[in-house]
Amino acid sequence: MFSVIKRFLIGQPLKSNELGEQKLNKKKALAILSSDALSSVAYGPEQILLVLITVSAAAYWYTIPIAIGVLFLLLALILSYQQIIYAYPHGGGAYVVSKENLGMNAGLFAGGSLLVDYILTVAVSISAGTDAITSAFPHLHPYTVVIAILLVIFITILNLRGITESASILAYPVYLFVLALFILIGVGLYNIVTGNVSAELHAPIGTPVAGISLFLLLRAFSTGSSALTGVEAISNAIPNFEDSAPKNASKTLMAMGLLLAILFAGVVYLAYYYGISPKEKETVVSQIAAATFGRNFMYYIIQGTTAMILVLAANTGYSAFPLLAVNLAKDKFIARMFTIRGDRLGYSNGIIFLAVASILLIILFKGKTEHLIPLYAVGVFIPFTLAQTGMLVKWIREKPKGWIVKLTINLVGAFMSFTVMMIFFITKFGQVWSVLIFLPLIVFIFHQIKKHYEAVGEQLRITTCEPAIPIEGNVMIVPVAGITHVVENSLNYAKSLSPDQIIAVYVAFERDAEKQFEEKWNTWQPDIRLVTLHSQYRSIVQPLTKFIDTVENKAAESNFRVTVLIPQFIPKKSWQNILHNQSSLLIRAFLLYRRNLIVTTVPYHLKK
Amino acid sequence: MFSVIKRFLIGQPLKSNELGEQKLNKKKALAILSSDALSSVAYGPEQILLVLITVSAAAYWYTIPIAIGVLFLLLALILSYQQIIYAYPHGGGAYVVSKENLGMNAGLFAGGSLLVDYILTVAVSISAGTDAITSAFPHLHPYTVVIAILLVIFITILNLRGITESASILAYPVYLFVLALFILIGVGLYNIVTGNVSAELHAPIGTPVAGISLFLLLRAFSTGSSALTGVEAISNAIPNFEDSAPKNASKTLMAMGLLLAILFAGVVYLAYYYGISPKEKETVVSQIAAATFGRNFMYYIIQGTTAMILVLAANTGYSAFPLLAVNLAKDKFIARMFTIRGDRLGYSNGIIFLAVASILLIILFKGKTEHLIPLYAVGVFIPFTLAQTGMLVKWIREKPKGWIVKLTINLVGAFMSFTVMMIFFITKFGQVWSVLIFLPLIVFIFHQIKKHYEAVGEQLRITTCEPAIPIEGNVMIVPVAGITHVVENSLNYAKSLSPDQIIAVYVAFERDAEKQFEEKWNTWQPDIRLVTLHSQYRSIVQPLTKFIDTVENKAAESNFRVTVLIPQFIPKKSWQNILHNQSSLLIRAFLLYRRNLIVTTVPYHLKK
Repeated sequence: MFSVIKRFLIGQPLKSNELGEQKLNKKKALAILSSDALSSVAYGPEQILLVLITVSAAAYWYTIPIAIGVLFLLLALILSYQQIIYAYPHGGGAYVVSKENLGMNAGLFAGGSLLVDYILTVAVSISAGTDAITSAFPHLHPYTVVIAILLVIFITILNLRGITESASILAYPVYLFVLALFILIGVGLYNIVTGNVSAELHAPIGTPVAGISLFLLLRAFSTGSSALTGVEAISNAIPNFEDSAPKNASKTLMAMGLLLAILFAGVVYLAYYYGISPKEKETVVSQIAAATFGRNFMYYIIQGTTAMILVLAANTGYSAFPLLAVNLAKDKFIARMFTIRGDRLGYSNGIIFLAVASILLIILFKGKTEHLIPLYAVGVFIPFTLAQTGMLVKWIREKPKGWIVKLTINLVGAFMSFTVMMIFFITKFGQVWSVLIFLPLIVFIFHQIKKHYEAVGEQLRITTCEPAIPIEGNVMIVPVAGITHVVENSLNYAKSLSPDQIIAVYVAFERDAEKQFEEKWNTWQPDIRLVTLHSQYRSIVQPLTKFIDTVENKAAESNFRVTVLIPQFIPKKSWQNILHNQSSLLIRAFLLYRRNLIVTTVPYHLKK
Repeated sequence: MFSVIKRFLIGQPLKSNELGEQKLNKKKALAILSSDALSSVAYGPEQILLVLITVSAAAYWYTIPIAIGVLFLLLALILSYQQIIYAYPHGGGAYVVSKENLGMNAGLFAGGSLLVDYILTVAVSISAGTDAITSAFPHLHPYTVVIAILLVIFITILNLRGITESASILAYPVYLFVLALFILIGVGLYNIVTGNVSAELHAPIGTPVAGISLFLLLRAFSTGSSALTGVEAISNAIPNFEDSAPKNASKTLMAMGLLLAILFAGVVYLAYYYGISPKEKETVVSQIAAATFGRNFMYYIIQGTTAMILVLAANTGYSAFPLLAVNLAKDKFIARMFTIRGDRLGYSNGIIFLAVASILLIILFKGKTEHLIPLYAVGVFIPFTLAQTGMLVKWIREKPKGWIVKLTINLVGAFMSFTVMMIFFITKFGQVWSVLIFLPLIVFIFHQIKKHYEAVGEQLRITTCEPAIPIEGNVMIVPVAGITHVVENSLNYAKSLSPDQIIAVYVAFERDAEKQFEEKWNTWQPDIRLVTLHSQYRSIVQPLTKFIDTVENKAAESNFRVTVLIPQFIPKKSWQNILHNQSSLLIRAFLLYRRNLIVTTVPYHLKK
């Protein structure tokens, strides 16, 4: 039943040697890896306006200089990541770069914040995508959270099917979105140039504004730079590219940077010229589209492609998170299960973990994009800063040909990323303080996990440990609940292995039952020793474990091993299990964690 | 950790022989068992008004004749249940009475609807209690569902501690509520008599109303009779009374009927005289209290005690549900676990099941009392009808002294209950149709469970079955994942039992790994046969089970038993388990349900 549904949703399993077919060409890579960055224009400009509106609508002209600042930041980041791609062609991005150049802890901080950030990528993109949908269809507004969760589930299924298949699905909406926004910006500019739009809608650039402050402008700049989240995705995913991977990745990064710059500049300028204010139930992009086309066919195309690219931007998280998790798991900082490929060769555990975590975030923040963004952006700029700083150290240490230029580029990148990060902490402390707690916590957990794996490895290795204690004999204990075929079955099995001793144990709740049972037993199985225990608190497990401990202590003295044989009957249909007390499961769970006790389950299958 | 919290919340465990101390005296019994019935006055009168308002406010005078009808119904029910108490002093109520007189299926219909009804008692009472709270503090209105759930959890903990302790806590609020409502009714009537209340607020009795119909009046009558839910509770809980139980129970029932009649009549009359209309966010009782006292101290006393008795009315469900479940479980119609007493001698499984089910209902109906009530009331009047009919049959069959009077009383009770039930089905079909589906379904499940238990019992009994197949020898299979101490430990154990054959099995994902491993193995354990399996879909379980099946088929031919020995290492701290792949758990779960396979877990405890 479960497996039929699974097959239907994610397809037939693939063999391990079918892995090679899943690589990406440039066109698909641009779609799959840049949807996050490109889609950011759907919420980035809005974030700037949301800060400026706290002063007055007259302050909107500040979006223009702020946007120019953001574009410079974009240029610095693109150039910096260009260098990372060539220097680290095997991918890993901020985690690998920081680890190799700044030491393990810096790497872990970068890795930890990226892990969290990919979860936020999914939550933010899906929430913003849902906003685009509810802007177009306002009566859906009350169902924001439900819609967002359904979208996450949809993307998760696509990813469990395997990346190439999802990439084919993804390529069209991304290119359609770019085309649609080009048309929007083109028509918008045409209207402005031909004077179809009143120039009265906005305050001219340079209008003095009461109450504006540097603090506020920095805040607007930093939230606006949330439009740059996602530019690192390509450098993390180089191993997914077709050969030669770094060259293809580099070209893809340039194309993405250029597209992002045009779209961001266009949206900001139109929003400014049309004098658009952010609204609770309609996004800025929706307002621009409505003002340009009216609510006609073209408007729904814009909203539709925006929603699609935003929803699919979540896919960047799905491409990047599992790969980063594999890198961390290979270094033993997170659970090994993240390195296992699923039926369709994707890293299913990473994909499912990401889905669950982002759904929790969406529920927690009730799908409100603007509350998620500060956390998201600060989490992005921490690894940005660490990666660029790592590159600085690399150039200074290795001094390759032309290293001064390379150094300068990464220096500018590092400095700007650090500045944005600090602005976030200073101007939005109330929303991002939690990063200062959970990031060190994550790094601490990473170290604990690694310590554990190393300790386990050492203890299991045959070469390093003391020789095993010899086994001189065996004692078998059979807890019995009555005189039945289930018990008979277990006793016959015990006898067939001829251990040194077999002890049957019966737990009685009442004194009368105890005596009765002993008498019956002695006629039924006179050759097997029966021990009866009295339980006045109606617990079976407690008196049993106490007795077993006593036996075990005595057995240990003469190097005997103790085996507990649990008779268990298996009903014909699995739902019938809930009708039985499952004492045997409980007993097994309790016993297994006790020292040196072996637990054997002897099933007796019912036929009706 | 878990056990510390458990001890703190529910107290130290009690010994089985401390059971006698948990009996109820009359005063406590009245509190614990009548809170459901008494608290119904908080929503019963409101239900009548909610129907009449669909015509017009002028129709409100009909509440008076309708209320008189309800009071007659109450009288009939009290007298009928009086007879049941003496006839069935061991309790069981509608289930036992129907079963013994009308046959098993009638009993099961009564039992099934009562089980569901006790869940609804909890859901309805808690929702109505939350309404009382949010009427007094309107800003809490958005948190209705959360408040209701917290209240259910609170009541559940009280009940897990044991009934006497909760009864002490419960007695005060119930008596305070009765006192507070007496004061309210007294002051209200005094104001009316002294002319402090305008007689213009209500239409006089007999005013002609356009649009009134018999259908509507019957509907109002039937929903109003929801105020009688809970009168059966005492007859079900006779074994909880101090000796002599039936006499005490009978007196308690009379006292309860009298109190209920006074409170119901008083509230209906005041609501009518004050001309009160039902409101979305304020209950009728709250409106009466506010009109009588203003929103002063006394108002909050009324609301507070109303909320408390409503919340504690849920407790009736907690007293009755587990007892009924025990009766059904003893007859093998539901899972045996409901007969087990917990640490504090209450039937914890029943209590917890009830809590979970009622929380689900509250969430499903969003805590809206008026949507839950029709389902609740119809579920109550089905067992009412069956129990009274059962009594009829009993009197006709046994013909004791004065049986004609007894017969007449139960005949009236049965007829009225049946009429109310039919009115519900006719006038509220849209809300109660689901009863017609889930009730037969529950009875069907009851039968399936009984059939299963009987089949199991028969198969386990030593006397009835064919002799067991002799065991001629043993084969042990050890799945191995590497050359480690964990595997060594399992192999040593297997050797110590000297079975006829030991086979180690290794599942390889790659051809190279396969050969390498075979070579290493042959130097390490040359005397143990190694079988390597190749898995191209990266599954361990599938190739393993296939291999084991082959071995088992061969072994079965010569009456050999197959044991699978699973090497498992146990980390020092339990959280570390999530860092390991748990293949062994998975393998065990898969193997246990296969025919005739014995599964042994050989733990290897890590020290660091």
